[in-house]
Amino acid sequence: MKKMSKFFSEKFASLEAYTPGEQPKDMKYIKLNTNESPFAPSPSVIKAAEEEAGRLQLYSDPELTPLVAKLAELYGVDKENVIATNGSDEVLNFAFMAFSDDSHPIIFPDITYGFYPVFANLSGIPYEEIPLKEDFTVDYRDYVGKGKNIVIANPNAPTGLALTLSEIEEIVRTNPDNVVIIDEAYVDFGGESAIPLTKKYDNLLVTGTFSKSRSLAGARLGFGIASKEIIRDLNTIRYSTNPYNVNRMTMMAGCAALDDNDYYMQNCKTVMENRAYTKSRLQALGFSVLDSKANFLFAKSPDISGEELYLSLKSRGILIRHFKKERIKDYNRITIGTRAEMDAFLSATENILKEKKQ
Amino acid sequence: MKKMSKFFSEKFASLEAYTPGEQPKDMKYIKLNTNESPFAPSPSVIKAAEEEAGRLQLYSDPELTPLVAKLAELYGVDKENVIATNGSDEVLNFAFMAFSDDSHPIIFPDITYGFYPVFANLSGIPYEEIPLKEDFTVDYRDYVGKGKNIVIANPNAPTGLALTLSEIEEIVRTNPDNVVIIDEAYVDFGGESAIPLTKKYDNLLVTGTFSKSRSLAGARLGFGIASKEIIRDLNTIRYSTNPYNVNRMTMMAGCAALDDNDYYMQNCKTVMENRAYTKSRLQALGFSVLDSKANFLFAKSPDISGEELYLSLKSRGILIRHFKKERIKDYNRITIGTRAEMDAFLSATENILKEKKQ
Repeated sequence: MKKMSKFFSEKFASLEAYTPGEQPKDMKYIKLNTNESPFAPSPSVIKAAEEEAGRLQLYSDPELTPLVAKLAELYGVDKENVIATNGSDEVLNFAFMAFSDDSHPIIFPDITYGFYPVFANLSGIPYEEIPLKEDFTVDYRDYVGKGKNIVIANPNAPTGLALTLSEIEEIVRTNPDNVVIIDEAYVDFGGESAIPLTKKYDNLLVTGTFSKSRSLAGARLGFGIASKEIIRDLNTIRYSTNPYNVNRMTMMAGCAALDDNDYYMQNCKTVMENRAYTKSRLQALGFSVLDSKANFLFAKSPDISGEELYLSLKSRGILIRHFKKERIKDYNRITIGTRAEMDAFLSATENILKEKKQ
Repeated sequence: MKKMSKFFSEKFASLEAYTPGEQPKDMKYIKLNTNESPFAPSPSVIKAAEEEAGRLQLYSDPELTPLVAKLAELYGVDKENVIATNGSDEVLNFAFMAFSDDSHPIIFPDITYGFYPVFANLSGIPYEEIPLKEDFTVDYRDYVGKGKNIVIANPNAPTGLALTLSEIEEIVRTNPDNVVIIDEAYVDFGGESAIPLTKKYDNLLVTGTFSKSRSLAGARLGFGIASKEIIRDLNTIRYSTNPYNVNRMTMMAGCAALDDNDYYMQNCKTVMENRAYTKSRLQALGFSVLDSKANFLFAKSPDISGEELYLSLKSRGILIRHFKKERIKDYNRITIGTRAEMDAFLSATENILKEKKQ
């Protein structure tokens, strides 16, 4: 993306866009690289989307009335505490725009969701990256009483490590004049949600997504839960950007997914079982594996570099995610799929390690 | 939206969000207020969206490969000249962000799509509104050699009046160091597209939408066509905002709609016939009606105020669009629907005028 037109605003001259996980089209891969659910949406979700397809000539409801009502009900808040967006990336971007600026910088861990620095750069927001501890944990004390806006993915990505609810509360409580965003994209796989704290603290925004636990990555649906005032501000940005941000089919698919909550929570349990299984088998192969509360594992082998393992698996038709960032380049992030997918991954990994030792 | 949180960035203190056309839920209305198509999507579009619903657990293709290829083919450009977005509002917002800033102001007509000043305010871009002529036409000479970025809806909304291709070319040609955006949301109803000019001028961005002529308002799909450099810049913004901006179902629905182009162009002809019919009947009722090239009419009666007609029709279950802006408050914008819908509108209007004269 280096070659830009002569018209491009200078403020974006050094903007480096986010790099999504690769989606190669040359062959069919076992995809363990973008943290998708291995389970298809439930039949009622497919049916809801289908039914809505016949009404596409009409604009979607900009208030997203039924979806917002169902989210409010599930999470025990009022509908004025809820915003729904085109993926959780959108609510995160809106939150960066709305609450951070030249005089309100934002801080986040140095190893976390790669989109945070991009959102900051996009809006010209000064930011600081707080190094994770040596063991890749977020030390909540690094965020206590900072007087700056904060965004933390909890569980964090790509590590999978989670803060406790009381640690989160301490961060929120001690930064009352700043917005604390807790990005809970992965919370349904074993984390503790901070949503109940939104009733107690007016400076907390919790974001969530239907992409991971609810099998709707390709439908693009995210949400935010916070005080009415914060939601109102986010809606001001939304109505100044794209009031029809969520299309009709996705809205109805989201409603049906919330009606089928048990199905999705059962899938999360399966993913957690497969995670435990994969972790112990990786450890048996000598890997260091972090204690993930997410639908992926972050692991490194003493016998092969992160990049080599990634490339060797890719040549065998298995995609995992490798990051070139210095501090984590020995690791790979492995999405948890079905048991069969994990067995294929484990067996390929075992073979790669064996061949390497020969 | 006045009450904001104490956290809201001061730069947005006076931001006034866009107001979408009303979508009242109290009863079923004949909706002639948001320029939707009265025709459902074609069966293959519905089928394509349905089929894709079963794959929603996987992220959409951020490159939107098949859709971009089909748009390129239809419009006779290369795929590097095309970007697809979550409605054309998104590509317009990206273009405001990418090419305008403090030192690159943007100009547009005083009466036009209400989102332009909102996009400008959202990004802190200085803008100037150029008054339409007394007869509501855009005088292209007002934009010749201005040395500023320009956005013009052609045909314009809510007037429906269009510039000729040679007038557009004169604007583009004489502002070589600035980006000229031609918003062709309504072009398929009788306007002349400027897309062929994108091959000749590297400063022209033409935007389009599937919401009007292609019956996909509720799917959210728009696009932009320009030089490779401009498209690359817009993609830098897209990949820094929301790389998965168009969901799977919408992408496949869009592909199917392009395959069914004849169906949609036939629908546009029907809308144009219904427009001519409605115009002549309104004129017979004494209305002044502008020469619309869009899927709506802009009309005023000497016998009733714009607001009174709007409210009277609403009470009879018919929605049209009224704007409070001083210069156009005597007018209403009436979307062209089916012949039956237009007859219902015309007969209600006739009755309202009759009752008023009694």
